[in-house]
This record gives sequence, C-alpha cells and structure tokens, in this order.
Amino acid sequence: MQLGLVGLGKMGFNMRERLRRAGHDVVGYDRNPDVSDASSLADLVAKLDGPRTVWIMVPAGAPTRQTVEELGELLSEGDLVIEGGNSRFTDDQEHAKFLAAKGIGYLDCGVSGGVWGLENGYGLMVGGDKSNVDRAMPIFDALRPEGPREEGFAHAGAVGAGHFSKMVHNGIEYGLMQAYAEGFELLDASEVVTDVPSVIKAWQRGTVVRSWLLDLLVRALDSDPELDDLRGYVEDSGEGRWTVEEAINHAVPAPVISAALFARFASRQEDSPAMRAVAALRNQFGGHAVHKAGPTSGSGSTGS
Amino acid sequence: MQLGLVGLGKMGFNMRERLRRAGHDVVGYDRNPDVSDASSLADLVAKLDGPRTVWIMVPAGAPTRQTVEELGELLSEGDLVIEGGNSRFTDDQEHAKFLAAKGIGYLDCGVSGGVWGLENGYGLMVGGDKSNVDRAMPIFDALRPEGPREEGFAHAGAVGAGHFSKMVHNGIEYGLMQAYAEGFELLDASEVVTDVPSVIKAWQRGTVVRSWLLDLLVRALDSDPELDDLRGYVEDSGEGRWTVEEAINHAVPAPVISAALFARFASRQEDSPAMRAVAALRNQFGGHAVHKAGPTSGSGSTGS
Amino acid sequence: MQLGLVGLGKMGFNMRERLRRAGHDVVGYDRNPDVSDASSLADLVAKLDGPRTVWIMVPAGAPTRQTVEELGELLSEGDLVIEGGNSRFTDDQEHAKFLAAKGIGYLDCGVSGGVWGLENGYGLMVGGDKSNVDRAMPIFDALRPEGPREEGFAHAGAVGAGHFSKMVHNGIEYGLMQAYAEGFELLDASEVVTDVPSVIKAWQRGTVVRSWLLDLLVRALDSDPELDDLRGYVEDSGEGRWTVEEAINHAVPAPVISAALFARFASRQEDSPAMRAVAALRNQFGGHAVHKAGPTSGSGSTGS
Amino acid sequence: MQLGLVGLGKMGFNMRERLRRAGHDVVGYDRNPDVSDASSLADLVAKLDGPRTVWIMVPAGAPTRQTVEELGELLSEGDLVIEGGNSRFTDDQEHAKFLAAKGIGYLDCGVSGGVWGLENGYGLMVGGDKSNVDRAMPIFDALRPEGPREEGFAHAGAVGAGHFSKMVHNGIEYGLMQAYAEGFELLDASEVVTDVPSVIKAWQRGTVVRSWLLDLLVRALDSDPELDDLRGYVEDSGEGRWTVEEAINHAVPAPVISAALFARFASRQEDSPAMRAVAALRNQFGGHAVHKAGPTSGSGSTGS
Repeated sequence: MQLGLVGLGKMGFNMRERLRRAGHDVVGYDRNPDVSDASSLADLVAKLDGPRTVWIMVPAGAPTRQTVEELGELLSEGDLVIEGGNSRFTDDQEHAKFLAAKGIGYLDCGVSGGVWGLENGYGLMVGGDKSNVDRAMPIFDALRPEGPREEGFAHAGAVGAGHFSKMVHNGIEYGLMQAYAEGFELLDASEVVTDVPSVIKAWQRGTVVRSWLLDLLVRALDSDPELDDLRGYVEDSGEGRWTVEEAINHAVPAPVISAALFARFASRQEDSPAMRAVAALRNQFGGHAVHKAGPTSGSGSTGS
Repeated sequence: MQLGLVGLGKMGFNMRERLRRAGHDVVGYDRNPDVSDASSLADLVAKLDGPRTVWIMVPAGAPTRQTVEELGELLSEGDLVIEGGNSRFTDDQEHAKFLAAKGIGYLDCGVSGGVWGLENGYGLMVGGDKSNVDRAMPIFDALRPEGPREEGFAHAGAVGAGHFSKMVHNGIEYGLMQAYAEGFELLDASEVVTDVPSVIKAWQRGTVVRSWLLDLLVRALDSDPELDDLRGYVEDSGEGRWTVEEAINHAVPAPVISAALFARFASRQEDSPAMRAVAALRNQFGGHAVHKAGPTSGSGSTGS
Repeated sequence: MQLGLVGLGKMGFNMRERLRRAGHDVVGYDRNPDVSDASSLADLVAKLDGPRTVWIMVPAGAPTRQTVEELGELLSEGDLVIEGGNSRFTDDQEHAKFLAAKGIGYLDCGVSGGVWGLENGYGLMVGGDKSNVDRAMPIFDALRPEGPREEGFAHAGAVGAGHFSKMVHNGIEYGLMQAYAEGFELLDASEVVTDVPSVIKAWQRGTVVRSWLLDLLVRALDSDPELDDLRGYVEDSGEGRWTVEEAINHAVPAPVISAALFARFASRQEDSPAMRAVAALRNQFGGHAVHKAGPTSGSGSTGS
Repeated sequence: MQLGLVGLGKMGFNMRERLRRAGHDVVGYDRNPDVSDASSLADLVAKLDGPRTVWIMVPAGAPTRQTVEELGELLSEGDLVIEGGNSRFTDDQEHAKFLAAKGIGYLDCGVSGGVWGLENGYGLMVGGDKSNVDRAMPIFDALRPEGPREEGFAHAGAVGAGHFSKMVHNGIEYGLMQAYAEGFELLDASEVVTDVPSVIKAWQRGTVVRSWLLDLLVRALDSDPELDDLRGYVEDSGEGRWTVEEAINHAVPAPVISAALFARFASRQEDSPAMRAVAALRNQFGGHAVHKAGPTSGSGSTGS
C-alpha cells in the first residue's frame, strides 16, 4: 500500500527501505533533502492518494507535536496518522483528540529493534481503534519480523497503549542491561575467572540467561574484550524515566528498573554531591579522612 | 566414554539420558534404587574401568562434601571427579585440595538449563586444569547444546571458576526475572493497555528485550493469562545470595541483583517487621492511622 | 498580629492554639462549625482588618487550589496569602501568579512537626518575596521552635522553594525511617541479640544514629516491644513520590529514597503481581515449586 | 576501678582520658611509646592487680585476634577481657571460647560516638554474661553519656550481641547518611531553592528529620557551604558490609542499607565496568553514541 513517512533518521530511513523491499509505495519526507522524497510536508501530502496514511517518525516531544499539528492542517477527513516515535503515551491522547476533531484517524505505535530492524524486522506495539489497525496492517506486517504475527506485533489497547507498552519495554530493557552489566563487573573483578569473554560467550546456548542482549554483549566483547575502549558513561532517553514515574503513579514497586536508571544518572557525574555529603559527615563524626577536591586527591588522617 | 554419575534427581536423571543418547556409557548412582544403576557408591566405583571419571550431581553443601569425601576413599590415583552441582565456588578449592592429596583430579562445572536441558542441552562453565578439561571434553560436548562449542561451553579458569561463573549467571538471572516482573506488573496496573499477554507475546521477535526467559513468560501467560493461579511467593537458592556477598567482597555495586534478591525475601513475609516499624513511626509523629494486627485490619484516625 | 487561618484539622487546630498562646489574634475557619471561628470563608475575610494575612492549611491538591481561588475573589490588593499545606511546589507558581494579578501577595511554607508541633514548635521553610516574608515574620516566629530563628526557619528562595524544601525533607524522612526499620528487622531476626528494645533505647545518647525519629521508635517500643499490635502496612503521601520524580527530573540518583518509597508500595500489596511473574518463570525453567493461589497454599514438586 | 586498656588510637586515647576524668585508674598500652603507660602487653598485665580487667581497642580482624591470644597467655583465671573494637560478632564467640578455656571472662562491647565521645560519652552495646557486665559497670558508666543509663548503654544479650548491635547501628548509619545526602543533592540541583545551607540548618529544630547527623551536616556546611572542598569519595569499613551479609543470612530485605553501601563502592570507581557494559550494549543495538576512553572523551554518532 501507499504510505507517507515523515522523518528519515536512523530509524525512519531503514523503515522506508524495509517497506519498499516488501513492495510498498513509500513517500518519505525529511528536512534533509539528500534523503527526502518530498520537498516539504505539504508536498508529501500532495504526493499521496486519499485516503492517506502518514507515519511520523521524528523525535518525541515538540518535533512530534509540531508534525501532528501541521498534518492536521494538511490532511483530510478519513486520513490516518500513525505516530511511531518514542513519545510519552500521555501525548497520544492529545494528538488523537486534535486529529479526531478533523475526522483524521490516529494510531500510536511503539517500535523496537534499533539499527537491526532493517534486517530483523521491528517489534511493534500499537494503540488505537481496531478499524485503523486493520487498515494499516499491511504496513505493520512488512515492518514486523518474519514469523507468526503475534510474536512481533500487538494491538495493545486504545490510543496510548502502544507507547505505554513501548515505555515498559524500554524500562525492562534498562533492568536487563544493568543485570548483565553487574554480572560482567563481578566476573571482571574475580580472581578465579580468568577468561570473562569466554564465559559470557558460553551463555549463548542452553542457559537461562540467553537473550538477544547477551548476544550483543558477546559481539561487543569480541571486538573489545575488556570493554576498555569506551567509558562507563550512559545516557538515558525518556522511557526509563517515564517507566519509573508511571510505576510511582500506579504504586508499583520498581526497585530494579529505578536502580538501573539511577546507575545511569550516576555514571554521568564527574563527582557526586551526595557522596560529598556522606564524606563530610564521616569526617565530622569520626575524623575520617576525606579526599580533597583539586589536582591532588586523597589526604591524610587516620580512620577509626 | 564411560562416566559414573552420582545423583539422579531432576537434573542428573536427564543428564544421564542425554549422555546415553550421545552414546556414552553412564553408570548412575542414586539413593533411590528405582533409578539407580548401582547399589552403592562403592558399587558404582567398582563398575567403572580405570582411570575413572565420576560426575557429582547432588545438592550443594553437606551432601556434595560428603560425596567428595567418600569418593576420595573409593577412587584411585589418576581418577577424575567433576562436581556439577550448585556449590559455592569456595567449596571447590577445598574439594580439589582434598582429592589432589590422593592423586585424584577435580573439575567444577556450573550447569544451566533446568528441565529443558535434556532436549536443548546444558550451558556449561568449567574450572580446573586444562588436561582434565580435555579429558572430559566428550562428556561436555554431549551435554552442551548443539552449535559451536564456545557458545555453550567455557573453560572459565582454575578450580572454582566454573561455579563462580554459574553463581554470577544465576545472579544475573535474578535481575532479569525481576526486570520482566516489574514490567509485567506495571502493564497489569495500566488502564490503557488492555491486552497484557498479547503485548508480552509480541516482544518475542524483533525487540530489544527478547530472550529465552521472555519466551517462558509467554508460555506461562498462555496457560494463565493473569498469573493468578499462583501466589507471589518466591524462594531463593544460594547463588543469588552468594552473588551479592561476592559483589560486597569485591566492592562491586550490585543494586539490581540485590534488589531482585530482596524482593524474593519480601515476597515470603506474611508481614514485614520493618514496615511495622515505619508504620509505628508515622503513627508516633503524625498520628497517622495504623492497621492493627488481628482479625479486623485497618483503623481510624485521620492522616495529615 | 492578626491572622486568618483556613483549615483547622490536625495541623491547623494546633497551630491556631500555638499562635494564640504567643498572643496573636487568630480567626480560624473550618467547614466543621464546632471548631470554626467564622461561618464561611467570606465571613473570615470580613472579620479581618486590612491589609489581611490569611494562612491556608487544607489538604493539598483540589482543596488548596479551590481555597486559593475563593480567596482571590474575597481578598483585596495588598493582602497576603500563606499556603502552608503539603502542596507540590509546582502548584505554588500558579497560585502566586493567579493572586499577583489581583495584587495579592503569596508565600508558600513547608511545615514540619506533626502532632508535636503545638508544644515543640514547627520547622518552617518559606518561599516568596523577602518583603512578604518580613511582614509575616511574627507569625513564623510564633510557630517555629524556641531557639535561634535560623535553626527552625528558613527563607529558602522564591515562590515554590518552601514546598520544594519540605518535599525533600519528607523524602529524606522516608529514607531515615526505612533505615531504622531495616535495622530493627535485622535485630529482631538475630538469635544473639535477645533484648532488641533495650538496644534501640541505648542508641538515644552518644551514638551516631541518635535522632528524634529514634526517640519516637523507642517510645513506640515502650508500649509495644515487638511492634506486633500493628501491621506492616504503610501509606505514603505525595511528598515521597514527588521527591523521586524531581530526582528523576534533575537526574539525581535517589536509590535510598526510592527504595523507601517502593517498600511502602509493597507493604500494601496483598500479593505481588511481579513476584507471581518471577514464581511463574522459576516454575517454567526449573520446575520449581509454586504456591498456588487459594485457600491451601504451597504445592509439591522438587527444587533443582 | 582499675582497667588495662590496649590500643590508644583515636578512640582508645580519648576513652582513657574520659575514664581518668571519672576517677578510674587506667593503665594504657600502645605500640606507640609516646602515648603508652606500659612498655609491653606483659608489662601492662604486670601493672594490674588481680582480678584484672583489660579492654581491647585495636583494629578489628588480625590485630584484635592476636591481642586476645596474647592476653590469653598473660592473664589469669578470674580476669576479664572486654573487646571494644569494631569486630565482627562471629569473632566474639571464638574469642570467648578461647579465653573461657583458661577461666578468663569475655565481654564484647560496641562503642559509638567517634571523636565526640570524649566530651559527649560513648553509646555502648554489650554482649556476655550478666555477672561480667555487672563487674565492669563502673567502666561502662564512666564511658557512657550522662543521663539515664539505659539511654546510652544496653546489655544486648550473650557474647556477640554487643558487636551485632553495633554492626546494625552502623548499617543504619549508612542508610541515614545516604538519605540526607540524596536530599542534599536534590536541593543542590533545584533551581527554586537558592539557599540550601539555610534550609538544612532550619531542619535542626521542630522537624521530623532532626538528628545528630543533621547537626553535623549543618556544621560541615557552615565551613564549606557547597561541600566543594572535598570529593565524593567514600570509604566503607566492615560493618556496612557485614550488615548486608547478615541481612542476607536472615532473609531480611535491606534495600536502603545495601543501596547506601553500593553508593560508596561506586563513589570510589574512576570508571564503572558495569556502565561500560551498558554503554557497549546501547551502542550495539541502537548505534547510540559512546564516550571513548582516553584523553578526549565523548564521540559522535547520532542517538535514536
């Protein structure tokens, strides 16, 4: 079928390619003219036959909101917008309402798979009306991985359910990565385990911890066995934060996902104000040594 | 090759079967005569040709130690013991030393795979001398999954390295399971996601969180979509505890693995003494309502 | 000086009494006519001489917002509103802006001290313009504890700073309480410590952990040495949640405060969906026993 | 009464002084002749009249064990040893047994108070037989703070109970410090709170979080309002680790105390191997930017 695709970054670019390989007619638009099939959003819309389906794949927040608003002006009654970025699920309800007033349909779609999606397909979680889901199914079927549809695609519920599911997916992802990471560090610290990469590689088959993330860790260790080409500095995107916030909103204990999030925050700190406070307290009550700030670190005084 | 196998419980029984399917000559011994091939440990040893290889697959702690000691009396110089249970790695060094004094070799082997190992093969992590590892390789090759050896088998280091690796494997497993579990609970608490099992099923292909554990969660949800046939009561075996203890010994932060462990402890408490203390404190300073122990719970007084 | 005080619940009632003891002229209003000095909010305003100062001490959220709005209609240019409830600091900026449009001043004041404040005084953290703070200082001085002003009162910053400070205060409080609670539970679980209440009582003088909360724990143990008259069921009010949310907003690691919050969530669950998921997973891969839901709990199958 | 005191470091030196001020006859021994009253341990013992009481105040572990063993040779039946260092409670049972075989009594005593103990007195938690406790009570009474005995002294149980109590005390201390520290960091990160030291100072009276540790934090902020004269590098001594280990041994959830411990571990890492693993994983699946190790940090590649 025909699809307009707004946003041809790392994700959108590959998705256009995967859809075209499946025989779909994709008109892409990006501000970068080198990759764009249309000169403007209006041009993109003009190039599509009605009723149109337009997939938005731009950064969450203001860029997505602005695109939804512009499409609201450009599209017609009976058209359909699919928002596939990493938006917060609470944004979807606003987008859907805004477009519904113009008779334009709306689906939110969480998309997982990263740079591997072009070849492997993308895991898809969709929220919205069943009729809209059915209408876009050829697109979803082309994007999702080979195999049974229900193992790579879910209609999770009403508008917002797709991004809520993706948010939780990413929260889980934070926890999984941190679990492997802690295990890696402990193996690394052990005196008795002398071949850490081989141990992790050997977990790929038969073990309880085998997973795609484990395969990727093996891949990383293959090229950098100590992982010392990079620094332990880890960004976080919105989903991990939102997951903890929603856990709080629903009074759901989330100790593992929050610990994983906080470990990322801490990884980006040159120095921790909190730990300065702890050091100051220990010094106050016990005369314990502190490490002075400045070029020479570490300082005298005996412990107790 | 020929192997003596001590312990034919859930794991050992299946391992004997898998080894026999691969053409090995296994003589098994278990206290349960219905499954045993020998009438006693002495009988087992007598049934083996020298130099013998005997695999121990009995519960960790006293049963394993006792079996090592008895084998120390029964075996001869040049024989080899492989300890495949869930022992603490610190026990291995004692076992190896005890047997070395008698000229008996020792390998420790962490075995992962649970009840699925019979068909899928077992992930293996081994510690000990290379010559002993080479000698037992036909056994390892039969037990490990199909595919490249290094994806299901590792020689992790000296004696103890196999069980240390398995310990960390299980610590990671605790973290992974808790991450999925927190995500499940949050999806379950959501008003917008109305088909939780479908969402989790859809994570099986293409997503970042796909894994064998996820496949098992899908399997569990297939037969019990709300998981309400069972209670949230979770045992722990030694490995999770040891992982946190070793993390502490090595000054490795392990917030995720420890959170997963503590969640299991809490799951087994009818009532939490700690939370009684928090409730008592809130009542003291703020006159906040407390829930009285006893048949009728909940009590009056307004919050502030 | 003269003060209007809206809300005569557990906190407001005692504050009126403390202010009157200090010689201030307080006109209180509450929907409960038994404690109210005025028949309506309009009556309260009518009873005050201009320029008026009105302190709001009603539940956070809608009740506070509604009171601010009504006062906006009733008060006059040059009057001053002090919002002393447990509001989220982000509400203050809206309240201040709304009132500023009418020429009415606004201060937000975090108030700590609970039911003990009548006798001990209340710790106060205030946000807003210095001129307004100075104007209300006689009230603050009467409410705060004896001793140097700066040890029980702070002008924390602009509007919102008072409630932000109180929010953090309460977040810390969660962490402190949980730390004592974990220690209590561990002492309680110990076989070697046979007189737990005496140990905790002995921490009141000379130790590093002495505090007012510890004194309250001793007080609770005096009347209930095992704390078994109550259940480990703990509510949370907004501040703990907001503290974690603000920590996330500022990328501040807050493992302790969030752990304390999650422990409260868990304390209120009859059964944990997350731990049901973990139990289901263990059963899937290892055939581990699960506890069935229903009247008889616990079920067979051996562990591995 | 007369007391031998072995170890005149930061703690022992002050304790000798406090005991002498109370009129006790203290003979101190330290390897440092500048502070010692005796030339050797044997000389110390020779200077005491029987039945002797000797207090050990040397570092935990080997130094304490060695001192106990030497005293076992030097002392006589009917003498009493009080072990006041930060030993693990499991050591006490061995010490007591060793000395009991020679008819020498044993008490373990947890001592809290740090460098402030000289003036404020020390919080004391004692394990052992009541008759020995009674015998040493004049010493305990001189060391403990003014006020009711039970508010600064406890006979916690049999041998080991004193050090177990002190261990838990220190575990709680870790949690308390981290709670204040997280709150400090969040205040520090806030845009709206512009006078953080004043806010914390104002918590000293009337609030729920007032404590001696808070007073010390105020004291630290008085001399260094941003705490930027020191680095967020925090050591840990054994007690925090042991507390978590004992929590694990007793299946007691200890999320706050363990989080506080792990924050210390992390504070001492130049770079985190675990977070390198997380960074590597993100890079693998999403092409997310990593920070390269080496002189120039941060590197290109777009996020997704």
